[in-house]
Amino acid sequence: MNAATLWQRYQDWLYYHEGLGFYLDISRMSFDDAFVVQLQPKFEKAFQDMAALEEGAIANPDEDRMVGHYWLRNPDLAPTPEIKQDITQTIEQIEAFTKKILTGAIHPPQAPRFTDILSIGIGGSALGPQFVAEALAPDFPPLGIHFIDNSDPAGIDRVLTRLRNRLSSTLVIVISKSGGTPEPRNGMLEVKRVYAGQNLDFSQYAIAITTPDSKLDQLAKSEKWLATFPMFDWVGGRTSEMSSVGLLPAALQGIDIQAMLAGAKEMDDATRVPDIKQNPAALLALSWYYAGNGRGEKDMVILPYKDSLLLFSRYLQQLVMESLGKEKDLDGNVVNQGIAVYGNKGSTDQHAYVQQLREGVPNFFATFIEVLEDRQYGSPELEPGTTSGDYLSGFLQGTRQALYDNHRDSITVTIPQVNPRTVGALIALYDRAVGLYGSLVNVNAYHQPGVEAGKKAAAAVLDLQKRILQVLEDDSRSLSIAELAEKAQATDQIETIYKILRHLHANKRGVILNGNFGDPSSLTVTIN
Amino acid sequence: MNAATLWQRYQDWLYYHEGLGFYLDISRMSFDDAFVVQLQPKFEKAFQDMAALEEGAIANPDEDRMVGHYWLRNPDLAPTPEIKQDITQTIEQIEAFTKKILTGAIHPPQAPRFTDILSIGIGGSALGPQFVAEALAPDFPPLGIHFIDNSDPAGIDRVLTRLRNRLSSTLVIVISKSGGTPEPRNGMLEVKRVYAGQNLDFSQYAIAITTPDSKLDQLAKSEKWLATFPMFDWVGGRTSEMSSVGLLPAALQGIDIQAMLAGAKEMDDATRVPDIKQNPAALLALSWYYAGNGRGEKDMVILPYKDSLLLFSRYLQQLVMESLGKEKDLDGNVVNQGIAVYGNKGSTDQHAYVQQLREGVPNFFATFIEVLEDRQYGSPELEPGTTSGDYLSGFLQGTRQALYDNHRDSITVTIPQVNPRTVGALIALYDRAVGLYGSLVNVNAYHQPGVEAGKKAAAAVLDLQKRILQVLEDDSRSLSIAELAEKAQATDQIETIYKILRHLHANKRGVILNGNFGDPSSLTVTIN
Repeated sequence: MNAATLWQRYQDWLYYHEGLGFYLDISRMSFDDAFVVQLQPKFEKAFQDMAALEEGAIANPDEDRMVGHYWLRNPDLAPTPEIKQDITQTIEQIEAFTKKILTGAIHPPQAPRFTDILSIGIGGSALGPQFVAEALAPDFPPLGIHFIDNSDPAGIDRVLTRLRNRLSSTLVIVISKSGGTPEPRNGMLEVKRVYAGQNLDFSQYAIAITTPDSKLDQLAKSEKWLATFPMFDWVGGRTSEMSSVGLLPAALQGIDIQAMLAGAKEMDDATRVPDIKQNPAALLALSWYYAGNGRGEKDMVILPYKDSLLLFSRYLQQLVMESLGKEKDLDGNVVNQGIAVYGNKGSTDQHAYVQQLREGVPNFFATFIEVLEDRQYGSPELEPGTTSGDYLSGFLQGTRQALYDNHRDSITVTIPQVNPRTVGALIALYDRAVGLYGSLVNVNAYHQPGVEAGKKAAAAVLDLQKRILQVLEDDSRSLSIAELAEKAQATDQIETIYKILRHLHANKRGVILNGNFGDPSSLTVTIN
Repeated sequence: MNAATLWQRYQDWLYYHEGLGFYLDISRMSFDDAFVVQLQPKFEKAFQDMAALEEGAIANPDEDRMVGHYWLRNPDLAPTPEIKQDITQTIEQIEAFTKKILTGAIHPPQAPRFTDILSIGIGGSALGPQFVAEALAPDFPPLGIHFIDNSDPAGIDRVLTRLRNRLSSTLVIVISKSGGTPEPRNGMLEVKRVYAGQNLDFSQYAIAITTPDSKLDQLAKSEKWLATFPMFDWVGGRTSEMSSVGLLPAALQGIDIQAMLAGAKEMDDATRVPDIKQNPAALLALSWYYAGNGRGEKDMVILPYKDSLLLFSRYLQQLVMESLGKEKDLDGNVVNQGIAVYGNKGSTDQHAYVQQLREGVPNFFATFIEVLEDRQYGSPELEPGTTSGDYLSGFLQGTRQALYDNHRDSITVTIPQVNPRTVGALIALYDRAVGLYGSLVNVNAYHQPGVEAGKKAAAAVLDLQKRILQVLEDDSRSLSIAELAEKAQATDQIETIYKILRHLHANKRGVILNGNFGDPSSLTVTIN
């Protein structure tokens, strides 16, 4: 395509939102008009599905749930007055509580102010807050935030060791929908022990964000924690950034949550328009469908050219892959859907994997995120007429051009600056694009059966550990692994038994392995 | 495959290195013996290529360079006495310099000790040091490290603002092979200005790591910086962690660099064995080849179940994709090779994209990294007999099993703990696996032509910016973008001109756009 034709295509497909100063350019996705016509009926259904979802339909049928994250930023849309009230009251509660924390009206027993936040949560309860903290927290926030987002003992130790001198002024937020997810539960139990070890009354430091009347809610109430904030069963973890999960930590860091909500609402309004060309989320979904033939045949590479957006790709990785990566479609057919997502930031990644993007396997399409404002104040010229921001902009344009020249498609999203309003808008844009794409490919974008299966698989391993420890206690002789598996009536799980023993042995948990570690069948096990 | 057969396959293919306590399990890659036989001739060539490389052959023919990162951890292998001496002297220089910094023998003008390091570098000069700092730095290192790894003005501002009260005790390391790469050059120039703004003599804080006699080396010498350390032209950026690039910052953070080197050397010895089954790097390369048909048809997902290894996937993303992602093979045929790599950490990712891995598009194979030791000291039991580390281990085993059940292949790497020796070994393992795989698919794994092309594309954009600013200065009328493009004799770059103008306008750089921003053809431009 020559430059004039391409420039015309750029203008024909350019989406611009004046209020947000937001641009979306899909001119470098190489679809033609016939493709758009062909997808039109699917989009009509997708727009209808989305309208029904926003009106309170059971859009997540497997879990028999409504899907209401759009209501969070526009409570007037909520299908019942009760839900509307839940939303507005929660935001008021967050703002009132934040004010008390920031003014010191609520303070730790031995200090005038809280200085830090320790957030304990995983998945949607961690990634949104991590992304927003990195993107939006001021350089010196009123409370600095730290995360425990795993069940890794060494990782928990590191966070707690680094915080040890400020633990007496550290607010702990435990985030768990049910209270039963092992990672946040384990994190909470370990943190509680360390608070107790410093003679600190954990309940004077702790906040719960959880479903009303969950196990965690009951615990928080019985132990008289500082506060509890609700999670709603109609908000999924990966779309919970605009619920108390995301808003409370953001507000405590001094981030303008009303601006986040406003930006999301503006984008929600724009992405409600049932017209592909006038709807940036539809344009994204169209592009994704085109790139991967509606079957995820191409990976989505996210390249924000702005350090503070580093975690956006990881946030989208969760949102997109957990929403779309499904075995079955809504009619029960095996479809193995999804789109793989990865990326970090530009221009840094140009000195890493962009080599492959330019020249290697053409198994992806790129999404550039461009931020027009270089920095808050003016830039020095590093050479006559040129700033470091000009370089960054040049790297983006150059890479986009080079990918195009090599027949690699790309999308470019442009925002005027990184601020609460534009970040809210980006979150909303992708929420909607994923929802629309889910309709296009006919999957339930709002459940995660594989995550549940993972929890069960792990529980089975822990049960097996208990069983073999019982066998070893009952029979103090030295056993081969095969003998142990037989006695535990678990010969079909002999390899897992070996792995469990190896782990217990390495951690001096009373299990001793002897023999040649390179030859598992030679090993014998005893307990001491 | 039933449990007994699978257990036998596990044992048949298990690789164990007693000295390192290192295991590699490829039993869940579903190749058969015929496949191994078929690849045998390619491996024989790969082993020969690698032996020649280690002996000093020009293994990077496009750049006419030797490839010597293996010599860094075993200088006796170096092909000449001069190279051997360069390596050993550099390590001695690093250790002597580090001692002087840590004891305060070298200190900043106004403070008794340096407290922080500001590292300015990109690509291989950043990712290795970032990964190693995250994996190995003590909780309270003698010097804390901070990175500028981009040309993002806001990102530079954030790092410098957070450091502003400690700048007078912050050591700056500028890392650039040539000194001409724009990102580190821009970072250095901006940092210099801020030091000058605090009336600090930058040369009393600065160290260069660069090729002897490069532009940067000349600058450092003429300005009498604290020290310079050499980069060698036979070490590529992505394999430079065991050169001064990685060793100096590691040593300054109190990390045992001799142990890193020793671990790498042990692994190098193990991966030199010209026998697939006795060589863990060959087993990895075999598995990669199998997974993607030698054409990168499957993505490599890296899942370390340990928080401190979070950046290993990003490190490998660079190493693998920049090494293997090539347009042409060594015979000049267009092959578009590569393997896409992504991942963060387990079990955290189980609450994100692992949903798709389990159920969705089967376009990947997984690599689990297991660490046997949970934490430095003993773990509390969170329920009878069970610790948070048992959960983490159970999550890994459960996910590996579930992927297998769903016909998704996986590799498992097991190390006893995360320490300098095992991290050195992991780096060396993947260095070699990538080199061997490069031979299997007949690409030059040691150059990066696409990165150079990216630099040129950006330079062209910056040149165009200068040209259009000149035209605007010469002609003060208001012009449409099309008129401006014509006057600049760059009608074939009209879209880039529009992007440049939009960026200058947004940053108040004297260029003013008027019109409807949603309709670029309506815009007119003036300068003030």
